[in-house]
Amino acid sequence: MHRYRTHTCGALRPSDIGASVRLSGWCHRIRDHGGVLFIDLRDHYGLTQCVVDADSPAFRAAEAVRSEWVIRIDGRVRQRPAGTENADLPTGAVEVYIDDLEVLGASAELPMPVFGDLDYPEETRLRYRFLDLRREKLHANIMKRGAIIDSLRRRMREGGFFEFQTPILTASSPEGARDFLVPSRLHPGKFYALPQAPQQFKQLTMIAGFDRYFQIAPCFRDEDARADRSPGEFYQLDIEMSFVTQEDVFQAVEPVLRGVFEEFADGWRVTKEFPRIPYAEAMLKYGVDKPDLRNPLIIVDVTDEFSDESVTFNAFKNVIKAGGVVRAIPAPGAGSQPRSFFDRLNDWARGEGAPGLGYIVFEEEEGGRLSGRGPIAKFVPAAVQAAIAAKAGLKAGDAVFFSAGTEAKAAGLAGKARIRIGDDLGLSDKDQFAFCWITDFPMYEWNEDEKRIDFSHNPFSMPNFEHDAFLSLDPADAATILGIKAFQYDIVCNGIELSSGAIRNHRPDVMEKAFAIAGYDRDVLEAKFGGMLNALRMGAPPHGGIAPGVDRIVMLLCHEPNIREVVLFPMNQRAEDLMMGAPSTVTPKQLRELHIRLNLPEKSA
Amino acid sequence: MHRYRTHTCGALRPSDIGASVRLSGWCHRIRDHGGVLFIDLRDHYGLTQCVVDADSPAFRAAEAVRSEWVIRIDGRVRQRPAGTENADLPTGAVEVYIDDLEVLGASAELPMPVFGDLDYPEETRLRYRFLDLRREKLHANIMKRGAIIDSLRRRMREGGFFEFQTPILTASSPEGARDFLVPSRLHPGKFYALPQAPQQFKQLTMIAGFDRYFQIAPCFRDEDARADRSPGEFYQLDIEMSFVTQEDVFQAVEPVLRGVFEEFADGWRVTKEFPRIPYAEAMLKYGVDKPDLRNPLIIVDVTDEFSDESVTFNAFKNVIKAGGVVRAIPAPGAGSQPRSFFDRLNDWARGEGAPGLGYIVFEEEEGGRLSGRGPIAKFVPAAVQAAIAAKAGLKAGDAVFFSAGTEAKAAGLAGKARIRIGDDLGLSDKDQFAFCWITDFPMYEWNEDEKRIDFSHNPFSMPNFEHDAFLSLDPADAATILGIKAFQYDIVCNGIELSSGAIRNHRPDVMEKAFAIAGYDRDVLEAKFGGMLNALRMGAPPHGGIAPGVDRIVMLLCHEPNIREVVLFPMNQRAEDLMMGAPSTVTPKQLRELHIRLNLPEKSA
Repeated sequence: MHRYRTHTCGALRPSDIGASVRLSGWCHRIRDHGGVLFIDLRDHYGLTQCVVDADSPAFRAAEAVRSEWVIRIDGRVRQRPAGTENADLPTGAVEVYIDDLEVLGASAELPMPVFGDLDYPEETRLRYRFLDLRREKLHANIMKRGAIIDSLRRRMREGGFFEFQTPILTASSPEGARDFLVPSRLHPGKFYALPQAPQQFKQLTMIAGFDRYFQIAPCFRDEDARADRSPGEFYQLDIEMSFVTQEDVFQAVEPVLRGVFEEFADGWRVTKEFPRIPYAEAMLKYGVDKPDLRNPLIIVDVTDEFSDESVTFNAFKNVIKAGGVVRAIPAPGAGSQPRSFFDRLNDWARGEGAPGLGYIVFEEEEGGRLSGRGPIAKFVPAAVQAAIAAKAGLKAGDAVFFSAGTEAKAAGLAGKARIRIGDDLGLSDKDQFAFCWITDFPMYEWNEDEKRIDFSHNPFSMPNFEHDAFLSLDPADAATILGIKAFQYDIVCNGIELSSGAIRNHRPDVMEKAFAIAGYDRDVLEAKFGGMLNALRMGAPPHGGIAPGVDRIVMLLCHEPNIREVVLFPMNQRAEDLMMGAPSTVTPKQLRELHIRLNLPEKSA
Repeated sequence: MHRYRTHTCGALRPSDIGASVRLSGWCHRIRDHGGVLFIDLRDHYGLTQCVVDADSPAFRAAEAVRSEWVIRIDGRVRQRPAGTENADLPTGAVEVYIDDLEVLGASAELPMPVFGDLDYPEETRLRYRFLDLRREKLHANIMKRGAIIDSLRRRMREGGFFEFQTPILTASSPEGARDFLVPSRLHPGKFYALPQAPQQFKQLTMIAGFDRYFQIAPCFRDEDARADRSPGEFYQLDIEMSFVTQEDVFQAVEPVLRGVFEEFADGWRVTKEFPRIPYAEAMLKYGVDKPDLRNPLIIVDVTDEFSDESVTFNAFKNVIKAGGVVRAIPAPGAGSQPRSFFDRLNDWARGEGAPGLGYIVFEEEEGGRLSGRGPIAKFVPAAVQAAIAAKAGLKAGDAVFFSAGTEAKAAGLAGKARIRIGDDLGLSDKDQFAFCWITDFPMYEWNEDEKRIDFSHNPFSMPNFEHDAFLSLDPADAATILGIKAFQYDIVCNGIELSSGAIRNHRPDVMEKAFAIAGYDRDVLEAKFGGMLNALRMGAPPHGGIAPGVDRIVMLLCHEPNIREVVLFPMNQRAEDLMMGAPSTVTPKQLRELHIRLNLPEKSA
């Protein structure tokens, strides 16, 4: 017989009745039914009810055990008495009568129980993470995380991708977020940096000719914590492909994401064909570049309608005169909502810094004509009201809200109002994973503060513009330049950006021109990105990729809003590992070896 | 037609003859046969011969291209002229006549060619790693590395293991090698450390109840470079299991390693059943705890024989009197070697700090009796010679070498001599992967300098000693204590230690006792390992594991003695990434944010 177990705690079935077995596990729950002790023995695989009474030589030993002690028992499998079966438990038809019991690992008093669903303070949970991880939900989340990553890997390999390991001790990146630095012992005064992402390495892997790269890649950013991002480290499904167009990236990535979401969605619907929404369209229709498509509402522009000379609502007219826009957010069925619904939305809008949310409620007049009521209805003649209703797809019983301001502000407020209205009216079908691609991001934008053209998103994306025409662009031709789109895209799920991606600019001449347009001269480019440019100059293939966040995917699929529920050993919000005591002080000898000394802030008085 | 390719460069076959195709890739080799240009187009998948002549509108463009330019060609597949087929190439029956050619990525003058096998200086290869990686052998090594890691993962999952990700920003470990440190921005004066191995995390994963852990784990040690270890980072197949004995670990790990070696051995033999060799036996028979079992020679102890009063060889007699031993290394067939063979071995031994290697060559006398000759034969009577020959399994025509000294020195020299003799006599069957387990390492050893008992290998391994008896050991009972073995083991292949492993000491009381025996009191233990002890006190299962080095496995399977041939982007021996320029200087602002300043060594005059 094996030293510790013949079966796991999830294995026994009625077919095992009569067998002599050995189990090891944790005492999950102990019940004393007056001379009969029930011990639910738990391991990774399940739970088995074990029973012992005074007739057993193990009774005395069993009386001494407490919750979370690790024990080994020998016993006989028997049918549970009729009526005491547990259909929810795979082992629920049987129990084991204990003949022998050995304590393998006793436990001191627990700072938090494992059994039960009681919530415990974050600090306790993180300090005793090894206990928290024994709890059912967190244990299941971590196992699901592993299964999701296995599935991602399998799907990537099936898609013809190869996995590579890129360096973790590397060079400080010249832009992006804050790096974690690692002082070099051998090179006094110099530092390694942990990679914010293996961006340059994956591009170099393409330039080296490996064609299709992926990595479940650890990434590091010394940024303050957010609920959806660990302070410190997180994982990306990092992807790069050679000889591809943007469409090839979509065709490669979409089935992987759809597949893994379908596999782990637990019945939630998953988008069959991910819609591709140009950035400008997303900003108009959803007021944001990461639209939550579970919400069916679509914003429309009603600037023209409010510009009509018949309209006398001067607040909007003035906005339009100053170059602003008016956006309409439909609120189907809102006509039946009480006044407080509208007041609350107004209050909310003021909290967002807007003067309020104007609105019109549509009612049916005699003869079937629409008639609007509400604070601004009287400034908008019936014909314009009808035009607005038609544009927003509204009928009697519906309402429409308005957001006015500069295009960015009006869109932003409309986008937030869209989510709020959809939620308040219960219009969103929440039980789904609604994906889309956002495409055609502008390459450049106007920097109003510095009165110059600047990069809009990623300076290293390939402009969607014929190369020779791009090379001969006049930098003063702002109209043309600000109209240039980049081969850059985002993948969005339920309003959450899983990743940006791009077809990279693999042509040194085009890259120099792209930077020149944004006012960076060649010296700056060489100084900051010389290594990469050097590689691009020695036979670089067209290539592109993306890097969906693994932690975010797992959070979505586990329905967890906090990343700490899906990471095995996370840090707290202050970037501390409370269990292992990191970060910690080090010895003067260590500092000397690394050629650094401390430079501590003055103690505040 | 796809923007870049209808086929890869490895795809075309005679069945494609007549097809119009588009290929993209690197110009591997360009040959000008007087008006006919042959371009071998290369991508990750293969090589296709492309042809163009003056009849093609693409001829002029083709004349401009140079080695390693990335081009796209359109053309027609045709049969190669009879006699010009290349049977070594999967595409070798066909060629593509180029109708159109587009330069996708030109290349400047190359610092090293991709085509051909010429060796280039390490510095050039690393600085232009993206070029070096295009070369056939390195490209194949890196792909093999990926396939090996995929196979390890698959086999681990099939063995019931789950993969987890443990933190990379963690606490400085209180012992082991030198840590890489990461200054904390949020906690002035404190530092994270990169993990030397996820040892504590994998044990905590077991204590958290996950039962079977593995990870292809990045590990970091700030140690000076060796050929078989990257300076900085390397990967382990990190494994841990709960409720297991040492035998369970062997049963789980052995099929994974055997399987992956058989899969990638390219015809080399792989040990079917890994022998288990107790440490003491390994030290005796092979003079080392990582024996190369490709070498068939087995060392024997001949101390008793040389102690015989009939022996008059005083050099050995004195060694024995002083408590030393004499070991015999058989040299089958060495009798036919010239005198220079023996002289070279003697010179070598002197280079190793030994007075020389005594030897006896056995010849057959009339009547079939053995008769020894050689420098020390005359001091050893025939009967003792015969006893030695019998013990070492030798016959006429064979020789035997002797190594005398303290047990450690005699064993060490004998071990090295065994390898040398085996190699010199050509006795080793090199084309195999010969595995073994080394078991039963001593828990403690005598520290002669400090005249006290010390840990021999890993203080956290479980002693192979009944727990209650261990707890009541008298620390002064050195004889018993020095005889205690630990449940600790090594896995060895071809004389290379792939990993140590152990059944862990999961009992806080036994751990305290183990440390007390070695002279560490409880305070020290708590201060250094309090976090771990704390976890062990809350219901820890028996557990154990191992962590074979992934880079070493890949090196063996790629037959590469240098780790830089099997790592995608390695650092050089001075821990620099020459391509990305790491480590590098950082800005004063970065240092301020991290609460450190530089402490540079004085410039030497």
